[in-house]
Amino acid sequence: MNLKENERIDDLGCKNLKIIQNKNWFCFGIDSILLTNFARNLKKNSNILDLGTGTGIIPILLYGKAEFNKAVGVEIQEQVADMAKRSVMLNKLESKVQIICENILNLEKRYEKNTFDVIITNPPYKEKNTGVINEGKEKLISRHEITASLEDFIRISKDLLKDKGEFYMVHRPERLVDILNLMRKYKLEPKIIQLVYSNSDKPPKLVLIKCIKNARPFLKFERNLYIYNKDGSYTNDIRDIYNNKE
Amino acid sequence: MNLKENERIDDLGCKNLKIIQNKNWFCFGIDSILLTNFARNLKKNSNILDLGTGTGIIPILLYGKAEFNKAVGVEIQEQVADMAKRSVMLNKLESKVQIICENILNLEKRYEKNTFDVIITNPPYKEKNTGVINEGKEKLISRHEITASLEDFIRISKDLLKDKGEFYMVHRPERLVDILNLMRKYKLEPKIIQLVYSNSDKPPKLVLIKCIKNARPFLKFERNLYIYNKDGSYTNDIRDIYNNKE
Repeated sequence: MNLKENERIDDLGCKNLKIIQNKNWFCFGIDSILLTNFARNLKKNSNILDLGTGTGIIPILLYGKAEFNKAVGVEIQEQVADMAKRSVMLNKLESKVQIICENILNLEKRYEKNTFDVIITNPPYKEKNTGVINEGKEKLISRHEITASLEDFIRISKDLLKDKGEFYMVHRPERLVDILNLMRKYKLEPKIIQLVYSNSDKPPKLVLIKCIKNARPFLKFERNLYIYNKDGSYTNDIRDIYNNKE
Repeated sequence: MNLKENERIDDLGCKNLKIIQNKNWFCFGIDSILLTNFARNLKKNSNILDLGTGTGIIPILLYGKAEFNKAVGVEIQEQVADMAKRSVMLNKLESKVQIICENILNLEKRYEKNTFDVIITNPPYKEKNTGVINEGKEKLISRHEITASLEDFIRISKDLLKDKGEFYMVHRPERLVDILNLMRKYKLEPKIIQLVYSNSDKPPKLVLIKCIKNARPFLKFERNLYIYNKDGSYTNDIRDIYNNKE
């Protein structure tokens, strides 16, 4: 496969899966790895939607961790979606993973309501007009709520999920009040939360949330996920996730 | 001081403060200790309200940890409120701490809106008609939302707090979606969350939340509080709190 300028191929360390990334754009982080792992216990025939798929990391890695029927990754940026499509071809996953280039705000023209069994998203973390905005356009759209807000991501997920469908999201803890309010507003009831820490002495840096559409309220916290031991090495939890032992 | 049947005096290990408890009723737990510690950085002239004060542990212990103008503890159960009043007298705190026997639903007849600088509450954790209800009446009212709901506690706090007043609550993590939704609904914006764990391998057992009335959204997580080390001994954090070193 011919790479374009600034592109490289990374090995995902899982069933020989690979992914193309552009070093000048948003590269996937531990967020996507942890979210994919968090969502891996799928029903075998699930149809999955990944909102804001970027490099395609979530549907491609999920193929290595779970059985499912089909996964659709939606990416608004044409060049990024093109790169993700080439990653799908590189892994010969054309029959399982489809990448579409679309603004998520237009998905309801493309799909009927109550279509998907599972929706996964690693959305932009930052509100529009917050923080320093001096990045390239690609990183900006991946990181800030420029083209769609958190509320858009949650509302559209509610509409496209089947009754009792599963919604998985990773986000920043400082947005938790917004997140839990919007989820309840759109009847995606938060059922499981897992907090992710650099180590046990720090505040959490990420929050993983599983919702069930139209479920009754009861929230369970999973035990925390710590990335590093005190000596700076990866914890066994993280090693197992990267080695796909979980 | 003469004790009534089934009563005992416990030393709080802080400035010689003591508290009367009845072994058949709800005795204060680590929840109240941690909440009092969490709320200790008060402005010196604060007027404080404790909703559901029980034994009076929060205003009495807070006197040992902070300076404030006056604290009012509200307790619906007459005999429990009487016991708390005697604890106030035992500590000679009549000029600082007032216990009133009242349903919190009636407080707005007694106080004008926007009266208090700080409201603290360790409310009943369980929804009405949930869990096993085979306890004595006193424990039942302390543990279940029989006489007032979580929404009542939050709505009344919003009404009685001054603009930018502080609201401190301890509760169970499984109610976090309800809690954060109600806080936002009543404009008590959650600003600080601290999770409390038995140890770092377990899910959280308590959540401490600080809100500011009418503040703008931004949530900060404090580093976690662990109660036990892996060998079962208390952590230094907990020792410091019990020894009032923090």
